[in-house]
Amino acid sequence: MENLKKKKESFPKELTHTDIEGKARIVDISEKKESLRTAKAHGFIIADKDIINKVKENEIKKGDVFTVAKLGAISSAKKTYDLILLCHQIKITSVDIFFEIIEEENKITATSTVTGFDKTGVEMEALTSVSIALLNIYDMCKALSKKMIIGGIELLKKTGGKSDYKK
Amino acid sequence: MENLKKKKESFPKELTHTDIEGKARIVDISEKKESLRTAKAHGFIIADKDIINKVKENEIKKGDVFTVAKLGAISSAKKTYDLILLCHQIKITSVDIFFEIIEEENKITATSTVTGFDKTGVEMEALTSVSIALLNIYDMCKALSKKMIIGGIELLKKTGGKSDYKK
Amino acid sequence: MENLKKKKESFPKELTHTDIEGKARIVDISEKKESLRTAKAHGFIIADKDIINKVKENEIKKGDVFTVAKLGAISSAKKTYDLILLCHQIKITSVDIFFEIIEEENKITATSTVTGFDKTGVEMEALTSVSIALLNIYDMCKALSKKMIIGGIELLKKTGGKSDYKK
Amino acid sequence: MENLKKKKESFPKELTHTDIEGKARIVDISEKKESLRTAKAHGFIIADKDIINKVKENEIKKGDVFTVAKLGAISSAKKTYDLILLCHQIKITSVDIFFEIIEEENKITATSTVTGFDKTGVEMEALTSVSIALLNIYDMCKALSKKMIIGGIELLKKTGGKSDYKK
Amino acid sequence: MENLKKKKESFPKELTHTDIEGKARIVDISEKKESLRTAKAHGFIIADKDIINKVKENEIKKGDVFTVAKLGAISSAKKTYDLILLCHQIKITSVDIFFEIIEEENKITATSTVTGFDKTGVEMEALTSVSIALLNIYDMCKALSKKMIIGGIELLKKTGGKSDYKK
Amino acid sequence: MENLKKKKESFPKELTHTDIEGKARIVDISEKKESLRTAKAHGFIIADKDIINKVKENEIKKGDVFTVAKLGAISSAKKTYDLILLCHQIKITSVDIFFEIIEEENKITATSTVTGFDKTGVEMEALTSVSIALLNIYDMCKALSKKMIIGGIELLKKTGGKSDYKK
Repeated sequence: MENLKKKKESFPKELTHTDIEGKARIVDISEKKESLRTAKAHGFIIADKDIINKVKENEIKKGDVFTVAKLGAISSAKKTYDLILLCHQIKITSVDIFFEIIEEENKITATSTVTGFDKTGVEMEALTSVSIALLNIYDMCKALSKKMIIGGIELLKKTGGKSDYKK
Repeated sequence: MENLKKKKESFPKELTHTDIEGKARIVDISEKKESLRTAKAHGFIIADKDIINKVKENEIKKGDVFTVAKLGAISSAKKTYDLILLCHQIKITSVDIFFEIIEEENKITATSTVTGFDKTGVEMEALTSVSIALLNIYDMCKALSKKMIIGGIELLKKTGGKSDYKK
Repeated sequence: MENLKKKKESFPKELTHTDIEGKARIVDISEKKESLRTAKAHGFIIADKDIINKVKENEIKKGDVFTVAKLGAISSAKKTYDLILLCHQIKITSVDIFFEIIEEENKITATSTVTGFDKTGVEMEALTSVSIALLNIYDMCKALSKKMIIGGIELLKKTGGKSDYKK
Repeated sequence: MENLKKKKESFPKELTHTDIEGKARIVDISEKKESLRTAKAHGFIIADKDIINKVKENEIKKGDVFTVAKLGAISSAKKTYDLILLCHQIKITSVDIFFEIIEEENKITATSTVTGFDKTGVEMEALTSVSIALLNIYDMCKALSKKMIIGGIELLKKTGGKSDYKK
Repeated sequence: MENLKKKKESFPKELTHTDIEGKARIVDISEKKESLRTAKAHGFIIADKDIINKVKENEIKKGDVFTVAKLGAISSAKKTYDLILLCHQIKITSVDIFFEIIEEENKITATSTVTGFDKTGVEMEALTSVSIALLNIYDMCKALSKKMIIGGIELLKKTGGKSDYKK
Repeated sequence: MENLKKKKESFPKELTHTDIEGKARIVDISEKKESLRTAKAHGFIIADKDIINKVKENEIKKGDVFTVAKLGAISSAKKTYDLILLCHQIKITSVDIFFEIIEEENKITATSTVTGFDKTGVEMEALTSVSIALLNIYDMCKALSKKMIIGGIELLKKTGGKSDYKK
């Protein structure tokens, strides 16, 4: 913990993706070592009780709503380098996502853990896969009501690289 | 308003993207008419004051943070049909996104309006472009701190198609 | 029927995708009318009884094997224009695919119907989606045995355009 | 040979791409070693004598039919990770495909050998490239007749990884 | 001709892809009419006599150099909307590209004509397909010598839309 | 220098991307070593004084023209393997591009340096990113005048791999 804190102090004081004039740049990772990296991200979608019920019903009858969302997550993790313009392409070795229905809060949560073996981290892959998973759920439910909100998208944990992180 | 309500009552009572057994399907839009569709979506990212300041500073010196986010939004709107697995590809005619820094809330908002001329709506394009724009901002700021949350992603308005919607 | 035959006689006598010297070309469809087109294609995969049983078991417990294959079909239908180098991109309005396990033949069949509204047909979209669906099944089963064969990929029917076709 | 058999016995008894409930998952290859992997796959297309003759004629005059099919194979090998939803992206180092016209059987065969250096095998890349090559041939010939069948798509051989395979 | 000139005078006086502050934007084409559009673009590559000879030799033996370049052109025309960040996706109906070897100038020229039916023009598709065709030639020849220059990429002609253009 | 010359003499005497019959092939890089590779490429666009002025004005007010071009360069570098049909996909570690306005020649230059760590070089990535950057500039300026020419696209330098190169 102490150690983690010290490492954090060596974090950059400026945006690394812009130069001194504020212009965009892609970070040069040529000299970095390849290592195993993991990142775990989380998010949720809040919807009308009616929608939550339909999704629950779909889950009970072992329907496809969460499978579509999961495959959207996996597919978008592989394309993160194209969606996040200043990202490098990462060698992804695993994408693991699961969903939970929290009825009393009218909420469905998504938690994604991405693993990669590369010169830079997989945070953006984890965050992107959560976001796209939730957007896929939104898409499948939107005919019932548009009153849905996606939120709480954040990084829970990251390992590998210069420093670890835990929320 | 009355009219809108009535239209809403004719909304499907079931998930349109799954069949009676809960299995995934893509909606058949063959018989639908092409028309001009718009959708406006919104979202925000909350970050440490330090990050908000850096982004503001970047904006003041007319840096690229919001330009990268905007281009990420435009690019992902064009690819929504590939990210949202049960979406059709839409003929997009316009993508307009802007950002606002709300200092007192440590928040940056993104608002995207997508226009298309097609047989189905552009809600997912608007929501996806907002999400990817905010993820691009996250990416550019993440070296400073990982304590950022993306949220409030919702549809504000939609026109064209069977029924309009306004939050 | 008579009519169909006559139309067929006006079919080209040469490969339309190569010029007089045999060099590749993309067919110019500028002058063709947009119309509703459908194509239905079929194919199968033959595997060891053990694999067929595992897939059946997965289907009984409402697992994801066929859902993954279906989503692979939908996704690849949208990308056919990029995979088949001399294809045009088509406005796809529907992709409907289903699978059948024929135990006594150790066979799983896939049947895909694609609908589009465009200046040219959707045969390649239907055939590509069937092929990719079966390859997705192969992928999910290949750890058990590599002795699988994909075959019987053919067009069953096509409507719209200059002439209809029925196998 | 004996050795190969023993290795085979350690093969998984269950589908590796689904969990205990039958739900889809991408295999975690984080701990696997990178090594040189090859896979050789095969397939054919059967067509009317007239089509076989046209393709042969095209080949004799050194036309482009097989070149288009070959480039379709190479291009799709690179995109296999996107088409086969639970595949990882592989570092492909070579794609070699050739075609043979077997006139007496009204058949054209395609044989593809893919090589990669990665943590998992290239079977799906070889099988996908064969399938897409044959679909490209179908596309170029389909104006003459739709009575074509693609079949016999199977793995002939694979080396590297935990165990080799030979048909 | 007179007419063309007058139309030209109504051309915008400012960059249409940036707003009053110089920030990027995608042009809104919602209100524009779909019509048939063509664009013809041209470019060349200059190389050592040795390379020109090899390409000529390849062409004489009906090799694949120009076929690869042509297929690169067709494929990139379909992807122009993704490469040129502020472009809309166009319904392309035809891509026609040919090459000429001008020995006395150590030059290979590429001329591409793209046709589309859409709300905006296909200039960028024509120019992109020429550029990518020439880069494909570069790639195939670069083992012999890196002393090659690609140049002269320009629009020769455009029809359809608000105004025609002819170099 | 002497050394470089000797290495050059061992360069292939034939096109490496075609076989003995002139047919396309992708080079097998399985046995090559991964190493750090760089390539620097250059190109320019010539336009009417009016356009050059508008771009300069945009640059002075810190507008987005060069940012869009830069992001087009980065994005296309990542996709070079798909655009250049016989290219392998490279692990890109850096893309650095800058622009210069040379008023007295009515010219804007683009210079791109790409770095990668892989079994083959990044020349095509550098050249493609320069070309696409310039095409993005063309796109943003084309409403003012179509009289623009893109040229001078060449490799300035390359390091890593079997031999270095310097123009």
